[in-house]
Amino acid sequence: MAWVVLAYSGGLDTSIILKWLQDTYGCEVVTFTADLGQGEELEPARAKAEQMGVKEIYIDDLREEFVRDYVFPMFRANAVYEGEYLLGTSIARPLIAKRQIEIAREVGADAVCHGATGKGNDQARSVRFELGYYGLKPDVKVIAPWREWDLNSRTKLIAYAEEAGIPVAQSKRQEAPYSMDANLLHISYEGNALEDPMVGYTEDIFTRSVAPEDAPDAPTFLDIDFEGGDPVAINGERMSPATMLTALNKYGGDNGIGRLDIVESRFVGMKSRGVYETPGGTILLRARRGVESVCLDRGEMHLKDELMPRYAELIYNGFWFSPEREMLQAAIDTCAKNVNGTVRVKLFKGNVDVVGRESAQTLYNAKLSTFEEDDGAYDQKDAAGFIKLQALRLRTLGTQRGPPA
Amino acid sequence: MAWVVLAYSGGLDTSIILKWLQDTYGCEVVTFTADLGQGEELEPARAKAEQMGVKEIYIDDLREEFVRDYVFPMFRANAVYEGEYLLGTSIARPLIAKRQIEIAREVGADAVCHGATGKGNDQARSVRFELGYYGLKPDVKVIAPWREWDLNSRTKLIAYAEEAGIPVAQSKRQEAPYSMDANLLHISYEGNALEDPMVGYTEDIFTRSVAPEDAPDAPTFLDIDFEGGDPVAINGERMSPATMLTALNKYGGDNGIGRLDIVESRFVGMKSRGVYETPGGTILLRARRGVESVCLDRGEMHLKDELMPRYAELIYNGFWFSPEREMLQAAIDTCAKNVNGTVRVKLFKGNVDVVGRESAQTLYNAKLSTFEEDDGAYDQKDAAGFIKLQALRLRTLGTQRGPPA
Amino acid sequence: MAWVVLAYSGGLDTSIILKWLQDTYGCEVVTFTADLGQGEELEPARAKAEQMGVKEIYIDDLREEFVRDYVFPMFRANAVYEGEYLLGTSIARPLIAKRQIEIAREVGADAVCHGATGKGNDQARSVRFELGYYGLKPDVKVIAPWREWDLNSRTKLIAYAEEAGIPVAQSKRQEAPYSMDANLLHISYEGNALEDPMVGYTEDIFTRSVAPEDAPDAPTFLDIDFEGGDPVAINGERMSPATMLTALNKYGGDNGIGRLDIVESRFVGMKSRGVYETPGGTILLRARRGVESVCLDRGEMHLKDELMPRYAELIYNGFWFSPEREMLQAAIDTCAKNVNGTVRVKLFKGNVDVVGRESAQTLYNAKLSTFEEDDGAYDQKDAAGFIKLQALRLRTLGTQRGPPA
Amino acid sequence: MAWVVLAYSGGLDTSIILKWLQDTYGCEVVTFTADLGQGEELEPARAKAEQMGVKEIYIDDLREEFVRDYVFPMFRANAVYEGEYLLGTSIARPLIAKRQIEIAREVGADAVCHGATGKGNDQARSVRFELGYYGLKPDVKVIAPWREWDLNSRTKLIAYAEEAGIPVAQSKRQEAPYSMDANLLHISYEGNALEDPMVGYTEDIFTRSVAPEDAPDAPTFLDIDFEGGDPVAINGERMSPATMLTALNKYGGDNGIGRLDIVESRFVGMKSRGVYETPGGTILLRARRGVESVCLDRGEMHLKDELMPRYAELIYNGFWFSPEREMLQAAIDTCAKNVNGTVRVKLFKGNVDVVGRESAQTLYNAKLSTFEEDDGAYDQKDAAGFIKLQALRLRTLGTQRGPPA
Repeated sequence: MAWVVLAYSGGLDTSIILKWLQDTYGCEVVTFTADLGQGEELEPARAKAEQMGVKEIYIDDLREEFVRDYVFPMFRANAVYEGEYLLGTSIARPLIAKRQIEIAREVGADAVCHGATGKGNDQARSVRFELGYYGLKPDVKVIAPWREWDLNSRTKLIAYAEEAGIPVAQSKRQEAPYSMDANLLHISYEGNALEDPMVGYTEDIFTRSVAPEDAPDAPTFLDIDFEGGDPVAINGERMSPATMLTALNKYGGDNGIGRLDIVESRFVGMKSRGVYETPGGTILLRARRGVESVCLDRGEMHLKDELMPRYAELIYNGFWFSPEREMLQAAIDTCAKNVNGTVRVKLFKGNVDVVGRESAQTLYNAKLSTFEEDDGAYDQKDAAGFIKLQALRLRTLGTQRGPPA
Repeated sequence: MAWVVLAYSGGLDTSIILKWLQDTYGCEVVTFTADLGQGEELEPARAKAEQMGVKEIYIDDLREEFVRDYVFPMFRANAVYEGEYLLGTSIARPLIAKRQIEIAREVGADAVCHGATGKGNDQARSVRFELGYYGLKPDVKVIAPWREWDLNSRTKLIAYAEEAGIPVAQSKRQEAPYSMDANLLHISYEGNALEDPMVGYTEDIFTRSVAPEDAPDAPTFLDIDFEGGDPVAINGERMSPATMLTALNKYGGDNGIGRLDIVESRFVGMKSRGVYETPGGTILLRARRGVESVCLDRGEMHLKDELMPRYAELIYNGFWFSPEREMLQAAIDTCAKNVNGTVRVKLFKGNVDVVGRESAQTLYNAKLSTFEEDDGAYDQKDAAGFIKLQALRLRTLGTQRGPPA
Repeated sequence: MAWVVLAYSGGLDTSIILKWLQDTYGCEVVTFTADLGQGEELEPARAKAEQMGVKEIYIDDLREEFVRDYVFPMFRANAVYEGEYLLGTSIARPLIAKRQIEIAREVGADAVCHGATGKGNDQARSVRFELGYYGLKPDVKVIAPWREWDLNSRTKLIAYAEEAGIPVAQSKRQEAPYSMDANLLHISYEGNALEDPMVGYTEDIFTRSVAPEDAPDAPTFLDIDFEGGDPVAINGERMSPATMLTALNKYGGDNGIGRLDIVESRFVGMKSRGVYETPGGTILLRARRGVESVCLDRGEMHLKDELMPRYAELIYNGFWFSPEREMLQAAIDTCAKNVNGTVRVKLFKGNVDVVGRESAQTLYNAKLSTFEEDDGAYDQKDAAGFIKLQALRLRTLGTQRGPPA
Repeated sequence: MAWVVLAYSGGLDTSIILKWLQDTYGCEVVTFTADLGQGEELEPARAKAEQMGVKEIYIDDLREEFVRDYVFPMFRANAVYEGEYLLGTSIARPLIAKRQIEIAREVGADAVCHGATGKGNDQARSVRFELGYYGLKPDVKVIAPWREWDLNSRTKLIAYAEEAGIPVAQSKRQEAPYSMDANLLHISYEGNALEDPMVGYTEDIFTRSVAPEDAPDAPTFLDIDFEGGDPVAINGERMSPATMLTALNKYGGDNGIGRLDIVESRFVGMKSRGVYETPGGTILLRARRGVESVCLDRGEMHLKDELMPRYAELIYNGFWFSPEREMLQAAIDTCAKNVNGTVRVKLFKGNVDVVGRESAQTLYNAKLSTFEEDDGAYDQKDAAGFIKLQALRLRTLGTQRGPPA
């Protein structure tokens, strides 16, 4: 093994991994640091990598690709996991894995390495990374240091770092009160202080949103335009995908929107508790439902709703790069092209409410649904025949079996 | 046709129908007035019916049966129609139809009659009533006056009423600005003033909730206990199903919770716009998700989520009394028995947030999901094998087909 | 109404309709006669139409379009209705409706007419035609003579024909012992003599297949090649879609393959009994399963299997031209492109057995599935971790709930 | 570890395992040998176990329990895996695991052991056994010798046996040409000689059926009665579940019915090729479809069909003892109680054809589906309204989007 591509944040843990890879495998390490909107400076990672003798350093701004090719397609499905979770962590892994494999091909590396600890909630992260790696490069060697090494305590890690000359900030010397994961769609908080699911979070953990209690006393109204299934403008101002999500995050965060505290079922078989901030995504989900309600036909909308839990499960479990996810995406995208219109949302102290929706191709027809005279557009005599035939099988059942219990 | 059982509210429209039945069919009319928590006095309906010469008058308080046998079973499914609607109107029809048919059997009536206009949003009501009637008594004759008579304008209706000596309140002489439908689960507002889906509702229509803006500035916390899948106590106080829903309505309404403004897809083929108040139901849905998150296994929870859209569609379309609804209910109830625990919710200006959940049989195991040492409960070496076999088919695909597009 | 496009077979019933349209509506009738492989001469239809004064006569050979754009896409889904029926009747209607509407646009007609009787099993035919018409031309006027006229007995029909100078063959003077519907995919037999579902059919009704008892005593082996999901060659000989299905019909019919006798559930609410011959389709379904088994990944195959019943139901109910059918088709076609390979089938006295299958991109890997040493391609140690994590939730359940009942 | 319950066949491999357990773990081994209809004598297993010093020997005839509580419930779902496979191997594992755990509780054992090799197709067997064990006794220790020991060649195994004084038949000294698995539902053949999926099986492997070519030239007709969803009588003769399946196996085997040659997708990620004999099950599946066609309503039948692939996948993957399988079973059993009737099947040279079906509660109504006058049971005028409302959304779509592509 000559070259390894490491997903490198520049933080303490992945710096230790970098050194450990050099020590253990005697290989050249290529570092890959991505901006997915996590809100951290990337240049320090470059400096650290250089210090540690890395010759190939990749630093990529993937924000637009992330939102355009991963977040938006996922939202087209109205994907929600277990009724609540917007999949903010899950959707970032496939892109990192994909880019890491691309780099491996570019530099001729035969191995990749990630820093997911494989413990606690990081199990899921390992699965998602590695399923991505294997699907995209079946012969790749995957190095998961936390499954391999014996640095199985904070003390040993710190000692290893110090011996290797890696600077250790004071705050890193103890276990963190919770672990975080951030990208442009969301931030998650898990573990330690949040372990008891009957004990609520404390306000201080949040970084992207004010509490609903502290949000403005007056509502904010937004008109969001959708084209081809994706949001393209706020209040008439067109913006790119990443700019759109950034703006929605700001609007949502300012209005106390998008906090979530759940216990979720992990692919690896246990339950875990997570606290999430997804301000923009929370607005987007409601807004999309609003515009879909006038743009999508009942048949396609209901089929989408039935497919959605499976789709969300696939993403949660790490199967973005699977043929069944692509099948579902093809079905979903078939109707996305018809989602063109505008939705008006009201943001107020944690609430997102749709208060208006319209489309040049609206399927809503006031003449059909009105209580007023409707010019024959809907002949209620038709309803008699409709009901009679819908009831025919139930009448046969009632006759032969007696009425339902 | 000797006897007809009429679903009778005591209002103007059903009083006209009562008279019209007597005039047109020369039959004895049995009136049936039910308390489903719509918030109206029932005794005036008795007086009116007596005045009009009705000999058999049924007035039933069905609130407990409604919540216990219809609302709660439906909530066990986390049923939501088109991602938003809690099915408050739909779930009341089957019970009315069932009781009406029971009365028909008791008095030996061969026909039933309902007052759904068959116009506008009332189409759905007709379908739900009539599918219920036919399923429960296949040989019943269904009379739907609004499809049969020629009283096709407000003017003609009023004239008919006055000629028949039915008192007409001044407010009933014009078309209402919107139609309402109420029961213990919700109130709906539809039609006329709400016809343009880009124009928001006005605050004055609501009767069960304050606006989030007007709700208290301090949150309310509730501990809700669930047993066998249903809520049984609030803050330790046990209460019957209808009392529970009444209490939740009060808590929700006081905190600005449960308003909804949507465009929905009707079974009869068109879109319609509805505004809803469902304060207690909105709390219940979130609370249930909270307690289910520690009580239900991933396998059963995900299967429930996949079945839910179909289940909601069946109820929306009027197929409560269908064998496929019963099949789904059987599946859902199989896991409901394991939902025993307590959920803590925070109510604040329109928001319902789960902030804690616990169960004596919790499936959440901090030892398994923690970042701390876990005493071997979860061996992360297992994850390597798990991932390798999960990835095997993706690797085969990648080898044979090349990586995914 | 100036012009009506009539789906015209040239037979007695549609000739009567032609005359009745001219008499009743005083309109110009455009006849449309299609060859979908029903096995009848089309030129007599032209002669008859000319005799009756029709000025625009369309006679189209649609066999290739039928198989390529309707039959093959449907088979990509492995569509089977209620576990047995290959949808031979259902799949022909959309194409007829589509072509009829195209002609209506060409000639500027504002109405279309079909000869489905609306009685008995022809109900479904009406639904399928009319849903197609309305979907493709929302403002079209649909004329369904059998719902409109008073020719409600064989005697009245014959009298009308004789008065109109339409020749009536002796065999048409009585009710047929059963009705037939034929196209390149199948022939159906229904009604009258087949009404008692406990009484079997008689051998004489069949026209495309010998009885298994009368088929050759030696098996026939075929190698069928698939490309992009569709069959393209038999025993190395490439052929067009319609030629392929014709050839498979011959092979199947000669070997007693493809007869089916079922009771099915109609969209309009009743059960009906049908007897079918689908020799080529029966071979194709089994053959496709064979080639898919080495070409499709488990994930996509299982998802296809879960979507299939819905897809089949949509086609059966007449919703070929619906957005939800298109969504499902998009999902199905996503994996069809990977179905490239060869399947060997053995045909023998009613049986179709797959006896071999191979593909240049086969996902079958003998090294992985063998009992032999496998060079590390599959490390059975991985299975231990895989099983442990699969079992984790079941162990948690067993601990908290006790073992399953 | 003091006691281990071993699933013991009495054959060479499990005898070696027995000895190896004694040697390696120094524990008391309890042998458990079950009759599931595999067609082997059980008493030799007792003799061998006694010879090897086993003190607790369990030999159970589980045939009735197997068919009544596992095979029949599974058939109620019409379960077929990947369109072809009747799950004959998969359905036997849960019962063996369950009984093994029962014995472990009886004797106070804390470990169980199975002889699945974990290689080749035996991987699936391991998974199914172990998921059963863990679900039923979460704290059980599972011993899988083939994953643990170093007897990784035939030569080493034979040497170990000879050293231990275990007699080795000449036929066992070489690898078998294929592996077999048998129970009352089926026999499977896999591996070695069957590894190339393009090469067909040879006639000599089969033990339960004649070739279709060799079956009688005259058909056999059976009338099979169903009660509560399960078959109870053949030609009027009532019989117990196991007797029923035995009889159907005889009828099927004599008529060349139930052979299957497929490539299937394993849970552990690879494809494998299997050849199966399932004579009775093949008859039962077709027969059940026949009786269901007149006993089950469209709504329940279609829902069953949609749930089936998931149900089959769960059983195939080893999740019989899972809450989601129980949910699906509850749904399926809800309609099974209405399956009461008789089906007539024709068996002929490999074919099973339903030629008649009837039920005292039949939902088939000749009056409704007939082409004859139907006394108003079905008013075809109703169809007009039915179609108009079904088409309404398609017309709206056509107007707003233009016709479908």
